[in-house]
Amino acid sequence: MKKFINDPDKVVDEMLEGFLLAHSDKIKKLEGSRVVVRKDVPIKGKVGLVSGGGSGHKPTFIGYIGRGLVDAVAVGEVFSSPSAQQFYDAIKAVNADKGVLCIYGNYSGDVMNVDMAMEMAKDEGIQVDQVIVNDDVGSGSKEERQNRRGVAGQVIVWKIAGAKAAKGENLEEVKRVAEKANFNSRTMGVAHSPCIVPSAGEPTFTLAEDEMEIGVGEHGERGLKRMPLKPADETTQILMDRILEDLPFASGDEVSVLINGLGATPLLELYIVYRKVANTLKERNISIYKSYIGEYVTSLEMGGYSVTFTKLDEELKKLLDAPAKGIMFKE
Amino acid sequence: MKKFINDPDKVVDEMLEGFLLAHSDKIKKLEGSRVVVRKDVPIKGKVGLVSGGGSGHKPTFIGYIGRGLVDAVAVGEVFSSPSAQQFYDAIKAVNADKGVLCIYGNYSGDVMNVDMAMEMAKDEGIQVDQVIVNDDVGSGSKEERQNRRGVAGQVIVWKIAGAKAAKGENLEEVKRVAEKANFNSRTMGVAHSPCIVPSAGEPTFTLAEDEMEIGVGEHGERGLKRMPLKPADETTQILMDRILEDLPFASGDEVSVLINGLGATPLLELYIVYRKVANTLKERNISIYKSYIGEYVTSLEMGGYSVTFTKLDEELKKLLDAPAKGIMFKE
Repeated sequence: MKKFINDPDKVVDEMLEGFLLAHSDKIKKLEGSRVVVRKDVPIKGKVGLVSGGGSGHKPTFIGYIGRGLVDAVAVGEVFSSPSAQQFYDAIKAVNADKGVLCIYGNYSGDVMNVDMAMEMAKDEGIQVDQVIVNDDVGSGSKEERQNRRGVAGQVIVWKIAGAKAAKGENLEEVKRVAEKANFNSRTMGVAHSPCIVPSAGEPTFTLAEDEMEIGVGEHGERGLKRMPLKPADETTQILMDRILEDLPFASGDEVSVLINGLGATPLLELYIVYRKVANTLKERNISIYKSYIGEYVTSLEMGGYSVTFTKLDEELKKLLDAPAKGIMFKE
Repeated sequence: MKKFINDPDKVVDEMLEGFLLAHSDKIKKLEGSRVVVRKDVPIKGKVGLVSGGGSGHKPTFIGYIGRGLVDAVAVGEVFSSPSAQQFYDAIKAVNADKGVLCIYGNYSGDVMNVDMAMEMAKDEGIQVDQVIVNDDVGSGSKEERQNRRGVAGQVIVWKIAGAKAAKGENLEEVKRVAEKANFNSRTMGVAHSPCIVPSAGEPTFTLAEDEMEIGVGEHGERGLKRMPLKPADETTQILMDRILEDLPFASGDEVSVLINGLGATPLLELYIVYRKVANTLKERNISIYKSYIGEYVTSLEMGGYSVTFTKLDEELKKLLDAPAKGIMFKE
């Protein structure tokens, strides 16, 4: 296992220490709880936004803390959920006078713990709600959409909800746009190389030298299909076909495109992928309003990428364009 | 060779097409030359800034085109220099009324081609000069500093010079601050895994399962030493010791810190490295004015990172803080 780490069991603590040293002007850690918050929470007149999940997806989650984005993040061990207590601490820390919305990916551990945290918060009279992101087309049929995992689409949902919350809108309104952004987002990933969770020391999956996995999850979960590695255009077409038919996206639609590197895949390759995406969408008369190309939700050093389309209307476009000052995401 | 590409001989053209499709609001390609420029060049009243080099280092070079940064980039094949003609085309495209400065890394091919391009430009009466960045402590002794390679320190030099040029200062002044930023910058890298140049299909180097290379170059050039892989803190200490004694950096200094991922190394690890750097600098009474942590100058999917310190004075601090609107670098 070749990694630049110290103790495999301390990677999250040491990474967190690094974040706090680097960004102490913008974030702080809650006393006694592995929760990172915007330095100025609770913010009066604003719905508090909470996210969180396992570590290993940097810049997700901490990188999205900031003005016009997320206010608090519960930090789990690598690829495992934070506790209910952590989510509760996060909710409490950002609760001012307009309630709190939790926005996170659909993983059973996270869902269970946020549910418990919300119960605890409600018992104290805190107004709290949630939007569970489930954009991953590779993780279940359309009929069981509610069981799908949440992957790179989370970034779009945080951005949209963050912008709405920054305007001082109420909890119902922030939830409404977050749900719209989630419903309108579809993602599909592919990988040719696994990652290694430090404490496990073993690759999350194995693929032959000429194989790739279509529909892979951001923790290396099995996807839809293993097949021989194909050229980038063909691979991207496979992903796009599934995404486009799922919403479905139609001629005349306007979308945002997010090409997300899963870790080891060079930007050079992501732009080759974007080229194919842009040309294909043009052929289908779907116009790209905004594009994001880079590493947004990674899986340690996994080799692969995902493609996310979000169907936009006037409201979502304005919210996407609104200012955002995250640690690692700026608009 | 597991890569998401189409034809190995077309990766640069296809990547470039992707960039132009994604960022057509900010950049354009020169007709008939593989040169990418800010859409609004030539810009009256501003020194034009040109860079360029081999591809495979994204976000370097194209990602740094923008307001307060670089104006034109000559785009070479993967890990090989653009031609003299390309650099000449770039110089010509950005030349308005205050001359042009070329800022790029010290590699013999690039130096030869920029020299030729500058001669061609001067023959046409264009005022042009250059700063050759040589921040890589791992590539030669202090006595032969002029032979050292240019690596991640380029980012700092572009930022400083870009800010100075944006103020409308003259060529001598822009060159002066660029030289100061270069002289004050020291970088050292380490890698545990190679990258593969698409057209070659072979790893740039091989290391045993427990080895790392200290002082590695951004194209996989041999460094100072191979040794068994050590914990992140120890590895980082080795890099820092060389960097600190080289300038030398001293108690009371203020610096910027750039922890640069070379490709496959997760952000989680880069923050563990930053933790060590920040704690060590504190012990030595060197204060961090600004820090950059992420992928700034990569080497395709190489596994490794580099550490760059730049000694700052009041002038450099102001220039670092000035606004910048690059495609992939914002301040």
